[in-house]
Amino acid sequence: MIISLPMSASLNLAGVKALTFDVFGTAVDWRGSIIREGEQWALARGLHLDWARFADRWRAAYRPSMDAVRRGELPWTKLDDLHRRVLDDLLVEFDLTGLTEEEKDHWNRVWHRLIPWPDAVAGLTRLKQKFIVATLSNGNVSLLLDMARHAGLPWDTVLSAELFRHYKPDRETYLGAADLLGCQPGQVMMVAAHPEDLHAARACGLKTAFVARPLEFGPTHPRPSAVSGNFDIVAADFLDLADQLSASKLET
Amino acid sequence: MIISLPMSASLNLAGVKALTFDVFGTAVDWRGSIIREGEQWALARGLHLDWARFADRWRAAYRPSMDAVRRGELPWTKLDDLHRRVLDDLLVEFDLTGLTEEEKDHWNRVWHRLIPWPDAVAGLTRLKQKFIVATLSNGNVSLLLDMARHAGLPWDTVLSAELFRHYKPDRETYLGAADLLGCQPGQVMMVAAHPEDLHAARACGLKTAFVARPLEFGPTHPRPSAVSGNFDIVAADFLDLADQLSASKLET
Repeated sequence: MIISLPMSASLNLAGVKALTFDVFGTAVDWRGSIIREGEQWALARGLHLDWARFADRWRAAYRPSMDAVRRGELPWTKLDDLHRRVLDDLLVEFDLTGLTEEEKDHWNRVWHRLIPWPDAVAGLTRLKQKFIVATLSNGNVSLLLDMARHAGLPWDTVLSAELFRHYKPDRETYLGAADLLGCQPGQVMMVAAHPEDLHAARACGLKTAFVARPLEFGPTHPRPSAVSGNFDIVAADFLDLADQLSASKLET
Repeated sequence: MIISLPMSASLNLAGVKALTFDVFGTAVDWRGSIIREGEQWALARGLHLDWARFADRWRAAYRPSMDAVRRGELPWTKLDDLHRRVLDDLLVEFDLTGLTEEEKDHWNRVWHRLIPWPDAVAGLTRLKQKFIVATLSNGNVSLLLDMARHAGLPWDTVLSAELFRHYKPDRETYLGAADLLGCQPGQVMMVAAHPEDLHAARACGLKTAFVARPLEFGPTHPRPSAVSGNFDIVAADFLDLADQLSASKLET
C-alpha cells in the first residue's frame, strides 16, 4: 500500500524508507496530560496541588536518571522503574502521603496514558501510507504499547531504547533501530522536537526532521518553532511533515 | 479500548493480557504464497517448475539452518540471510540460472510478501480489541514489518527472535517477549499451529493456544485439526480463537 507521489521537497530524501519518532514531547503532550490527570484526581479528593510543577519536577529528573544508567552507575533499568524512583521522592516533596501501592502504581503509569498532540494521529496515519512509522523512544516497550492502544497512535511497530539496553542519545539505539528496520542509517529519518536527539541521530548517519512543539514545557516557557541546526526538514507539526514528505492525503 | 465481556471459556485465562503469534504457517500461508508467486513468475518467462517442491525444499532447510545458530555453529544470523543461503542452493538444484542479484534478492523477499490465511486479519482485528496482539516469530523484524504492511496484519508491535538473538524454541525468546510486554509469563498466551512451539512456551509458563492449519504443508500432507497436547485452547482458526476468548465481534 505504498502510494508513490513525486518528492518535490528534497531529492536527497528519496531513499528514506522509515521514520522513527521520539515520543515524549514530540508525539504526546506529557506535561498537559499529567496536569489534566492530576487535576481530575485531586478534584475528587478535595486536594490542591501545583500539577504543572509536579509534572515539571518529574520530567526534570528524567535525564539525570537515564544518564546514571548510561554512565553505568545503575544497571539497565526500564524507564517505568526510573519513573517510579522519582515518583516516590515527589510524593514526599509534595506531601502526598498515604497512597496505596496500587495508587502509586496507577500514578506511575500516567506515562502509559499520555495524550497525543492534536495533529499526531492524523499525521502518522498519512505518513504510514508511504513510510514505515515506528517509535524510537526511551520509554519501555510496554509503556509505548499501552500508550499506542490508549491514544490510537498507529505505529507499525514499537522500537525502544529497551531493545538495545542503551538510552538515547547513545549511538547503539539509532544504529540498532536502523539495523532492525533492515535499513542503512541514511534510509531512516529521526523525527523529534529536541535538537540533541536529532544531532545524535545525524552523527549516526540518519536523516533528521525537527518538529516544533512550542508548548511542550508550557506557555510560560515556550520553545522556538524553528531552531538552528542542520536538519533535513523543519516542520510545524506532523501534518506539515506529511506535506513536506509528499505523503498523500487520505480520501475520507 | 478494552471491551469487557464475560470469559466463559476458561476462568484460568482471566489474567491473559497479551497474545503472541507464531507467523509462518500460523498467521500466513507460506507454501501457497510461494507457489502462487512462483507460478506467476514462471508463466511470464515460459518456465515450468514444481513450485510446491521448491517451497517445501526451502522450508525444509529452515529448521536445520536455525539450529546451526542455536548450537553456536553459526554466529547470530537474520532469517533473511539464512533464507538466502538456502535459496542460492535451490537455484542450482532447480537449474534456475542467470538470475541477477536484484532478482535473487526479490525472490528471497517472497517471505516478506506471504499471504495471510483467510481468517487471520479479521480474527486479529477482533482479538486486538481485548488483548495486545504481537508477533513472536523467527522472522527478522524488517521481514515481519514488510509482511504486516503488505498483508494488513494489524499487530500492535512486532516481536522477533532477532530482538533476543535466540531462535525459538530457545527459552530466551518466550521469556524475553513476556518481559518486554511487561507481563508475567502466565499473562501471555502463545498462539501457534505447531505443538513444539507451544510446548516450549508452556515450559516457560506461558498459556498456549493451538490453531489448526491443516493445509500448511499442502493437501496431500494434511495436518491434524486437533492434536494431543496440554494446550489451554484448541481452535479451528483465529475467528474461533476470538470466540473462545470472548473477544467482541466488531460492529461493522
